[in-house]
Amino acid sequence: MTESNPVRRRMIEGAGRLLTRQGYAGTSMRAIVQAAKTPWGSVHHYFPGGKSQVAVEAIELGDRQVRSAIAACLEGAATPADAVRAYFALAGSVLEDTGFEQGCPVATVALETASDDGAVAASCSASFDAWIAAWAEALAAAGVEPGRAREVATVVVGGVEGALLLSRVRRDLEPMRLAAASAGALVEEALAAVG
Amino acid sequence: MTESNPVRRRMIEGAGRLLTRQGYAGTSMRAIVQAAKTPWGSVHHYFPGGKSQVAVEAIELGDRQVRSAIAACLEGAATPADAVRAYFALAGSVLEDTGFEQGCPVATVALETASDDGAVAASCSASFDAWIAAWAEALAAAGVEPGRAREVATVVVGGVEGALLLSRVRRDLEPMRLAAASAGALVEEALAAVG
Repeated sequence: MTESNPVRRRMIEGAGRLLTRQGYAGTSMRAIVQAAKTPWGSVHHYFPGGKSQVAVEAIELGDRQVRSAIAACLEGAATPADAVRAYFALAGSVLEDTGFEQGCPVATVALETASDDGAVAASCSASFDAWIAAWAEALAAAGVEPGRAREVATVVVGGVEGALLLSRVRRDLEPMRLAAASAGALVEEALAAVG
Repeated sequence: MTESNPVRRRMIEGAGRLLTRQGYAGTSMRAIVQAAKTPWGSVHHYFPGGKSQVAVEAIELGDRQVRSAIAACLEGAATPADAVRAYFALAGSVLEDTGFEQGCPVATVALETASDDGAVAASCSASFDAWIAAWAEALAAAGVEPGRAREVATVVVGGVEGALLLSRVRRDLEPMRLAAASAGALVEEALAAVG
């Protein structure tokens, strides 16, 4: 669902960038409001649930962006293995183009909130599940047995997350390139096993 | 270097657990002091550099623990591939035994601080480098060409990080088990290539 109100949209997008860069606890509602150049008074009107509501909506936006990117890579590639490699390349280029600030839009907040039972943690967990499901579906559509498709998809998403972490911290795309080759080979093997 | 002062040690260990669980911004100096059951007044005596000093020492402690665990897995395994699988199993058991709270002792803080230039970010980055170097050294010792050893080690560490993230968020060791098999196979391939 795209946010139609421009002020709400600006706040959610700005919050998403801050959360990706520095996490949930390190991002104040005031910083979100300042980044969106919104009057402070309008915050409670747009987000009566406060920071946790903005964060959930920002995570959901990040989730949709990742799912669109996965779909676009699958659409544009000849095989799911090529799509996986294209996705790594795309995520790597976003990371590099943002000065190694914008890695995974969910991971930082996910790690901070994983031990909570709140809505923010739930939206992070749902995002990873959706990405695994998206890759698994494409693999199953290419003939991979659904259980195996899910296993391979889980390794692919884990590979993306670990590589984005290392590449961001080291400000170097090498971990992304190496993980892309490894994940691509794993997907090729799974496809080769079904002929 | 092991901390010999018991109050300092308790504060660093407690800070490590809090930072691993909830990150840097979400962990106040007061929470660290309370967790260590230390009088507030002693904090500035032991850590004149404040929270950032405690965090750096906690990250360094986590780094040493991971390096010891890697060394123990290499020591106890017949091949580096077995050691990699043993390391995933060990990290997974720590995660499970702590109710999915204690994943990677560096990742949460690393993602929050990656865009800073401070000492905390530097200690996170140095930790990942040390873990990659430890695996790379073992692979090179087993005959893998040093450049390839480093590449494989980078994929292994990225695989651990991504799987710990997914397993912690989903409170389920399946991502760890799948990533262990994948990383183990990658290492076996690299070893097979050298005879």
